[in-house]
Amino acid sequence: MKSFLVQATDGKARAGLLELNHGAVQTPIFMPVGTYGAVKGVPPQVLSERIGAQIILGNTFHLWLRPGLEIIQKHQGLHRFVNWHRPMLTDSGGFQVWSLGDLRKISEEGVAFQSPVNGDKLFMAPEDSMRIQHVLNSDIAMAFDECTPYPATREQAATSMQLSMRWAKRSRVAFDSLSTNPMYERQDTGANALFGIVQGGMFEDLRTESFQALQDIGFEGYAIGGLSVGEPKEDMLRVLAHTAPQLPHDKPRYLMGVGTPEDLVDGVANGIDMFDCVMPSRNGRNGWLFTSRGDLKIRNARFKDDLLPIDPDCGCPVCNPQAHGDDRPPFTRAYLHHLQRIDEMLGASLATIHNLFFYLDLMRQMRQVIQVGGFDAWRSGFKAKRAEGV
Amino acid sequence: MKSFLVQATDGKARAGLLELNHGAVQTPIFMPVGTYGAVKGVPPQVLSERIGAQIILGNTFHLWLRPGLEIIQKHQGLHRFVNWHRPMLTDSGGFQVWSLGDLRKISEEGVAFQSPVNGDKLFMAPEDSMRIQHVLNSDIAMAFDECTPYPATREQAATSMQLSMRWAKRSRVAFDSLSTNPMYERQDTGANALFGIVQGGMFEDLRTESFQALQDIGFEGYAIGGLSVGEPKEDMLRVLAHTAPQLPHDKPRYLMGVGTPEDLVDGVANGIDMFDCVMPSRNGRNGWLFTSRGDLKIRNARFKDDLLPIDPDCGCPVCNPQAHGDDRPPFTRAYLHHLQRIDEMLGASLATIHNLFFYLDLMRQMRQVIQVGGFDAWRSGFKAKRAEGV
Repeated sequence: MKSFLVQATDGKARAGLLELNHGAVQTPIFMPVGTYGAVKGVPPQVLSERIGAQIILGNTFHLWLRPGLEIIQKHQGLHRFVNWHRPMLTDSGGFQVWSLGDLRKISEEGVAFQSPVNGDKLFMAPEDSMRIQHVLNSDIAMAFDECTPYPATREQAATSMQLSMRWAKRSRVAFDSLSTNPMYERQDTGANALFGIVQGGMFEDLRTESFQALQDIGFEGYAIGGLSVGEPKEDMLRVLAHTAPQLPHDKPRYLMGVGTPEDLVDGVANGIDMFDCVMPSRNGRNGWLFTSRGDLKIRNARFKDDLLPIDPDCGCPVCNPQAHGDDRPPFTRAYLHHLQRIDEMLGASLATIHNLFFYLDLMRQMRQVIQVGGFDAWRSGFKAKRAEGV
Repeated sequence: MKSFLVQATDGKARAGLLELNHGAVQTPIFMPVGTYGAVKGVPPQVLSERIGAQIILGNTFHLWLRPGLEIIQKHQGLHRFVNWHRPMLTDSGGFQVWSLGDLRKISEEGVAFQSPVNGDKLFMAPEDSMRIQHVLNSDIAMAFDECTPYPATREQAATSMQLSMRWAKRSRVAFDSLSTNPMYERQDTGANALFGIVQGGMFEDLRTESFQALQDIGFEGYAIGGLSVGEPKEDMLRVLAHTAPQLPHDKPRYLMGVGTPEDLVDGVANGIDMFDCVMPSRNGRNGWLFTSRGDLKIRNARFKDDLLPIDPDCGCPVCNPQAHGDDRPPFTRAYLHHLQRIDEMLGASLATIHNLFFYLDLMRQMRQVIQVGGFDAWRSGFKAKRAEGV
């Protein structure tokens, strides 16, 4: 990581510039999720030039299993493999192995689990996660952690968080030794960044303890993990409001796996700079579309003969091709309804493009209003319009 | 149809210009197939601007069932519904109802069948097909015919062909009365074209008889149907070589549902101007890729760590993004192999884009060499290179 600069603040909300090895990212930013080395149904050129994605997320766990490290190594990293030349962040794989449930066993050393692809017995320790992310050569790697389940007692949450903090230390050591080990030298532009992850469940004091442990180790950025795991919205907001403002002002702050458009606005209001979530892409594939006037389920029969675009106020290539140098009119809701009903992949693809554009555009709007000190007014207007309904 | 002009000939091969209501088409041309109002996985802008498709095919039967005529009527035709502003051809639905096998019953009047979507009892006569194609407002409509099964005795082939000829006459009458009926008046640019379809199975004399019956009726173009239905390649080539050169020189000639790249070259060599086939799109979705050095099955393990593009000589957006104003390098075979193995729809989409580009580029190459009188030499070179293997 080259630098992070907070360029403007408005209340707790921040607009910043994050300079990474593969380019600059204007924050606040949303990162589309490319699980297996592809944002499902969206070519990289559309992602960067039409949707305006500046950084995308790759899943360490999935890519390790398929296609495996050897293939990605041969491409000198994930960027060339997937043909994405802007920054990338990789998660640590911790959340995915944790999600395997009965198929995994957690010990001090790491996590033993069965491959969901072929049943192989595998093991992932913090050192493995760092080695894999080093081969992926992501601009930002994440520390290996355990996601605290919800619900959890205070004791369970503390034990889990403390394990994650020991793993965070081992992640830092392994990451640094890979970066300086001449055996692993690469022809790239410099050291990548490692972010630590604050855990602690729904307990504010554990969140503080977790952050302090991470700060003692020292990371290039700090993430909040273990939210959006089934807890009520007010718990999520309470932990967010408690934790985010404590994180260092001069480092990027990342809220992991969250969430709805409203969640993102609340995150920014609490000083978060970075987000990722499968919601816009996964929901899009199923015909759940986000609009400035609320969500729209395009499979609903009421849209079958609707000639309007998904969102007349949207500037995406589906709602407004002309804003993208394409002289055709908007795709109609009726057409998108039809494509979803016949399970045509173009429908999933167009819906994903719309949703991701909506999320990225939301970030651009917030960045703009933060820079002119109008975030609170904008936030009220945004929420009121979203509540109107389509 | 505004006009058709043969601009150059080279042996029997022709280069022409077909002017239709929604624009001009340079022949020989291949028409990608958009069964349900979408070329699966390919947005219309990519089809027109990246692949260079000039005309696409829509399936009357499928679109009639879903989304149904009312929805398309509300969009004033298929063009606006699918957001394609260049020419379109629709088939008559005859082949699709015929393909239903036991679910359909053919009589003089038309075909009674059960809807494969919901089991409804439906009926399609030539007049219905014309009415549906009129609502779709395709630039070229096809006469309603019966596809002669293969194998068929001479008597079966004759009986079937004669029925198709009576239906062709009814198609012409119905088409013309719709075009001039003020009840159906539209704000468009003029009458669309109706093409007749030569049948007659594998019997040369029946093919001649069929064409003469069609010529007596009079059509804006002539198609050869009932090939690529299971017959040996030499029968296909024999019937093609017998039939195509008989068709009027000053009218477009269309070989329906054919075929491999070699078939298309043989078709052009026999004077065919237009082709459609699901092969490039359907095979692409399954990882079967066409290249200048033969076909390539990308799921094959030998491609798992191959850093080459699909076809280093190809100018498509997958093999050569830079030819499309995109500064990224080619997608590697290893990446496409991976996408196919994990069944990621982006893999199907990129493979379809490559294959359709290959087919359209083949047409552009043939047009060029016909114009300079080099078709035969080019044809030998093309077949020799394709036979080399990848």
